[in-house]
Amino acid sequence: MSKTIIAIIGCGTIANNAHIPAYLANPDAEIKYFCDIRKDRAEKAVDQYGCGAAIEDYRLILDDLDVDAVSICTPNNCHASIAIDCLRAGKHVLCEKPAARTYEEALEMQKVQHATGKILNIGVVNRFNTGVNIIKKMIEDGELGELYHVYVSFRAHRSIPGLGGDFTTKAVAGGGALIDWGVHFLDLVMYCAGDPDPTTVSGQTYSKLGKDIENYTYLNMWAGPPDSTGTYDVDDYVTALIRTAGPSITVNGAWAQNIGVEEMYIDFLGDKAGIRLQYGAEFTIYSAKHGALLDSTPKFTQTNHFQNEIDGFLACIKSGEKLPSHIDTVILTSKIIQAIYRSSEQGEEVSFIKQGVM
Amino acid sequence: MSKTIIAIIGCGTIANNAHIPAYLANPDAEIKYFCDIRKDRAEKAVDQYGCGAAIEDYRLILDDLDVDAVSICTPNNCHASIAIDCLRAGKHVLCEKPAARTYEEALEMQKVQHATGKILNIGVVNRFNTGVNIIKKMIEDGELGELYHVYVSFRAHRSIPGLGGDFTTKAVAGGGALIDWGVHFLDLVMYCAGDPDPTTVSGQTYSKLGKDIENYTYLNMWAGPPDSTGTYDVDDYVTALIRTAGPSITVNGAWAQNIGVEEMYIDFLGDKAGIRLQYGAEFTIYSAKHGALLDSTPKFTQTNHFQNEIDGFLACIKSGEKLPSHIDTVILTSKIIQAIYRSSEQGEEVSFIKQGVM
Amino acid sequence: MSKTIIAIIGCGTIANNAHIPAYLANPDAEIKYFCDIRKDRAEKAVDQYGCGAAIEDYRLILDDLDVDAVSICTPNNCHASIAIDCLRAGKHVLCEKPAARTYEEALEMQKVQHATGKILNIGVVNRFNTGVNIIKKMIEDGELGELYHVYVSFRAHRSIPGLGGDFTTKAVAGGGALIDWGVHFLDLVMYCAGDPDPTTVSGQTYSKLGKDIENYTYLNMWAGPPDSTGTYDVDDYVTALIRTAGPSITVNGAWAQNIGVEEMYIDFLGDKAGIRLQYGAEFTIYSAKHGALLDSTPKFTQTNHFQNEIDGFLACIKSGEKLPSHIDTVILTSKIIQAIYRSSEQGEEVSFIKQGVM
Amino acid sequence: MSKTIIAIIGCGTIANNAHIPAYLANPDAEIKYFCDIRKDRAEKAVDQYGCGAAIEDYRLILDDLDVDAVSICTPNNCHASIAIDCLRAGKHVLCEKPAARTYEEALEMQKVQHATGKILNIGVVNRFNTGVNIIKKMIEDGELGELYHVYVSFRAHRSIPGLGGDFTTKAVAGGGALIDWGVHFLDLVMYCAGDPDPTTVSGQTYSKLGKDIENYTYLNMWAGPPDSTGTYDVDDYVTALIRTAGPSITVNGAWAQNIGVEEMYIDFLGDKAGIRLQYGAEFTIYSAKHGALLDSTPKFTQTNHFQNEIDGFLACIKSGEKLPSHIDTVILTSKIIQAIYRSSEQGEEVSFIKQGVM
Repeated sequence: MSKTIIAIIGCGTIANNAHIPAYLANPDAEIKYFCDIRKDRAEKAVDQYGCGAAIEDYRLILDDLDVDAVSICTPNNCHASIAIDCLRAGKHVLCEKPAARTYEEALEMQKVQHATGKILNIGVVNRFNTGVNIIKKMIEDGELGELYHVYVSFRAHRSIPGLGGDFTTKAVAGGGALIDWGVHFLDLVMYCAGDPDPTTVSGQTYSKLGKDIENYTYLNMWAGPPDSTGTYDVDDYVTALIRTAGPSITVNGAWAQNIGVEEMYIDFLGDKAGIRLQYGAEFTIYSAKHGALLDSTPKFTQTNHFQNEIDGFLACIKSGEKLPSHIDTVILTSKIIQAIYRSSEQGEEVSFIKQGVM
Repeated sequence: MSKTIIAIIGCGTIANNAHIPAYLANPDAEIKYFCDIRKDRAEKAVDQYGCGAAIEDYRLILDDLDVDAVSICTPNNCHASIAIDCLRAGKHVLCEKPAARTYEEALEMQKVQHATGKILNIGVVNRFNTGVNIIKKMIEDGELGELYHVYVSFRAHRSIPGLGGDFTTKAVAGGGALIDWGVHFLDLVMYCAGDPDPTTVSGQTYSKLGKDIENYTYLNMWAGPPDSTGTYDVDDYVTALIRTAGPSITVNGAWAQNIGVEEMYIDFLGDKAGIRLQYGAEFTIYSAKHGALLDSTPKFTQTNHFQNEIDGFLACIKSGEKLPSHIDTVILTSKIIQAIYRSSEQGEEVSFIKQGVM
Repeated sequence: MSKTIIAIIGCGTIANNAHIPAYLANPDAEIKYFCDIRKDRAEKAVDQYGCGAAIEDYRLILDDLDVDAVSICTPNNCHASIAIDCLRAGKHVLCEKPAARTYEEALEMQKVQHATGKILNIGVVNRFNTGVNIIKKMIEDGELGELYHVYVSFRAHRSIPGLGGDFTTKAVAGGGALIDWGVHFLDLVMYCAGDPDPTTVSGQTYSKLGKDIENYTYLNMWAGPPDSTGTYDVDDYVTALIRTAGPSITVNGAWAQNIGVEEMYIDFLGDKAGIRLQYGAEFTIYSAKHGALLDSTPKFTQTNHFQNEIDGFLACIKSGEKLPSHIDTVILTSKIIQAIYRSSEQGEEVSFIKQGVM
Repeated sequence: MSKTIIAIIGCGTIANNAHIPAYLANPDAEIKYFCDIRKDRAEKAVDQYGCGAAIEDYRLILDDLDVDAVSICTPNNCHASIAIDCLRAGKHVLCEKPAARTYEEALEMQKVQHATGKILNIGVVNRFNTGVNIIKKMIEDGELGELYHVYVSFRAHRSIPGLGGDFTTKAVAGGGALIDWGVHFLDLVMYCAGDPDPTTVSGQTYSKLGKDIENYTYLNMWAGPPDSTGTYDVDDYVTALIRTAGPSITVNGAWAQNIGVEEMYIDFLGDKAGIRLQYGAEFTIYSAKHGALLDSTPKFTQTNHFQNEIDGFLACIKSGEKLPSHIDTVILTSKIIQAIYRSSEQGEEVSFIKQGVM
């Protein structure tokens, strides 16, 4: 069978650390293009991986009938336009998370997906994580009883990425801690809880510690050192209470806060058992039986979730199967995130029951 | 100067552990009555403390002109009626927390306080705690910068008090984890934040783990062992998001949950510094300066906050000073708690802005 | 802009560990000469670093108009003569600490600096240390209140460097523990305290444990193993009390002592707060507020102080800026050290107030 | 043989904790008077110990021929006058440390001792301590080689006794940390070093942390809580460098300092071995032999040094033996302390060589 021909659009960190190695490791894929508006990054990829051609303009890909599928690894502000262009050009699309800067952009992407019939998956990689899938299975099997509440904590001490750059500029990224980290945590919860429809969302976001870029204190800074001439107009703290058709969800998240304790975990509260998942690490199940309190931390072989994501994308191109990372599922997370930002602006809860569609 | 004559109404745990020893240690106070509907408890107090008379009916106190003040240490359902009777009989009142089962009852108590001019203080003892007052002072002095958010966690693993008894019967207690523990945590936050008016309250409460009284698993149980013939119709888990004229507040609280980690702390998030207070223990201040991250856990001499509360009550009887535990201040916490219960029932946020008074 | 041409004079430990790597890491510098009276060391440097020429006689450098600046990394007895020759030949000079063996030599170096206008910086590298500069900033900002006393402890158990060699020969080194280690500690204190003029100095130095070279017991010995045919006529213990226009300073220092505890720290005592700096490591701030005692150990990103020193030297050659390591500032430390030695010989305090200049 | 008849003058902490129990435990002593200007304290002693008579005025003792000896346990300002009166009345005297507020007072006491021939011992109780006597013996036996330096550290974090009271009022106590704690440490050193004559003394004392009595922060306070209407005009920090006919001595002492580490120890530095004595606790000997470094913490039975002191006093009354706590020996410590205070005032060293007698 012939190989699936791939173009990588955007050759930054996530492309190099996740997408490219996974495509290279899959015998069914072949990378034809490395595309980046910074040509040197595209060329570096060609050199490093010994395949493909370096290009600056992704529109060259649209015209190349050989290309079957693209991975979009650009900053958030290009997700929607590039994805739409690619779908319309007949390409299958794997687009990095978040789907887009806003729910409206995501809806537009979904509309084009429906119109073209091409695949549009979002890089919600936790849906391909071994541990997360074990938790999902346990919930489905009723091992937690009724899952009534989920508490989500993604609180770091001082971790703003690339202060002053793309990550902290609303026009580019669409938001800060919530859209960058929160999307992963919320999508993971939605996945495990069976993607229940949200009914109400009340939230507040704060842009505090990064505002004085020059005097921001930190121990290390990924995605580059602060640019004191740059922009910081996104959230570094977020809190929210979300009601859904399933469990309620409470969120506290911080890129930066004046509390020097890192708390990155999700609590799934069921009336039979509960689970605390340390994000990206192990989880513990708490239950009670025969008058005894039990806790247990399962040991299992963790597989590479990025590889699973890419393998899944390549397989579904052939099979037509709808993956859990399909835009139709993932769009709920966009809806929630947008509602948190809107609720914060309005200073009151957003209700999807009263308003019908948002 | 003559001593202040006191009657103790309700001779259970809080009376014996806190109120009575503090009155005995204050040279200005004299206990004339120990009152309890279980006569044996009143008699045991007379024996043990070597003073006062044991009575069953608190109305005897109303007619005794000698009695200057009362401490109400009964279950919550009697707070309002006894406090109102005592105020009308010209007695000063220190009423254990919560003020009452409902906001309406608390408003009634406040109305009578205003009409009689007698003192009505509530047993929000954290307002007399040394560490809490240091935190309040730091916030007032601007050491935290803008206090923008507070996260409140009072989550125990399996700690329902007296399962099946007064504490878990809504008609008696008015509620569960929220009204019993939450009142302390929320009142502490309100005190430190300068008692800001609440604007919106969204919350959900759950009555889950205690429902099957017979099979409830626990390690120890204060306020007596489970009574499997008793009632359990109160909350054992609560989550809420509260907006105020000051910081927003997020709450997670559990008398019981299937997460085996005890997390009893309050995070005060300011843009200059933050504080994590371990409830009833030490606190740590986190800040940043000159490019360095700082944390510090102050050492100080903890005074007995129950003694401070009683001393303050006795002193303000003479001076007329309005203490921070006065019903006029503390009633805001009742308002918030009631709103959480109402929001949970309605499945949507309660707004005090739109509705005017609740 | 053209590169600054450098000659390294003396290719021992400090040159290889600090100066040379820092010049190589700075794009504005180019090393033209490695000079050492032991030709093999110069040649080894040429081999290792792949640049420059190996020479034995530093006077060749004086005649080479290409050379802009030199780093003097020789034993102490050559500091003054080489620095003076280089300044007179129009070279900028970075001279390792101590400035010289005696205050008189240092004064002579300063005189020539003034006459030639060329830069003469001393390798008091702590002035380029991140933590030290945070402390200096805190003192300047008044965070310690009045800084009234500093206690300096540089006491090791058994750490005489190269017993019997250059370090322990007074004619070469000018002294022992005081001039080798004490210069760093005292200069750091002077820097943080704002370089206050000394007014009185009382001190005693002792040459005890290293005297019997053959039987000297130690665990490890840097700068080579003992040479039992060598010389040991320098101090291995020093104590002093120094009054200045700012705080008083008390010193205890030992290369070697019969106390098996290593105590390398500086206490800055202010009436509002105090700091204990563990030399070369972290520091802790102690204060008191609102009735509580506070201590905090800042976390910050330590930069490479040797790199900062060299970068600063190269930058000030172009900018003409006077760095805090300029001979005009650092000479005060020479004055204090000399006074400690003189006070020890005389068995009484040296006063700069009575005598005018020393 | 008849019992020695004793009067206790001053019935405060040191009398009750040390002198009285020791006299009661010695079969040769009988307490006839408890004297205190606060009559209740004298009466309480009579009650508690079941012997003696309570009096207010010590002059009644002078006239009672039965009384052989007195213990003076009053505040420092009464030491000299009472001791002199008692000696002149033919009584033997054990006077608590310090001998007096000033060296002049101590000299006057010594003069009267010489004139009367009665015993005058000072309560320098460390001279009766088992561990201290082992150290003294080791030094005398040459086990440390030449004792060239002693470092004395009596630094507490926040330990001012009875802030605002007798201890912190110069007119009563004569000084602060130096005269209250320093006298013990310095006298111990003098004893172990063979009571060598001082030759030069340079010192600085500071009165800083206790000055703002109202806001002084502490964890506990012996000798009573702060009296904000009281006086604080004494030293809370002292540093000094003392040369003697024997070793040099460096001192750092603090009743209170902004360094949160308690360091109460004395280092004896010899060229063969050294000792670190943890004040009031164990000591460690450091030495080197056969190429190995050795340390050893002796274990021995600690006797009650207060009992030894009283037993010694009672015995020497009969034997006429001159104890090491005799005024003739102890007066050197007074001389040193006075010189530290004088040097601090003058801002320069005090020399006993140049000036002859001080």
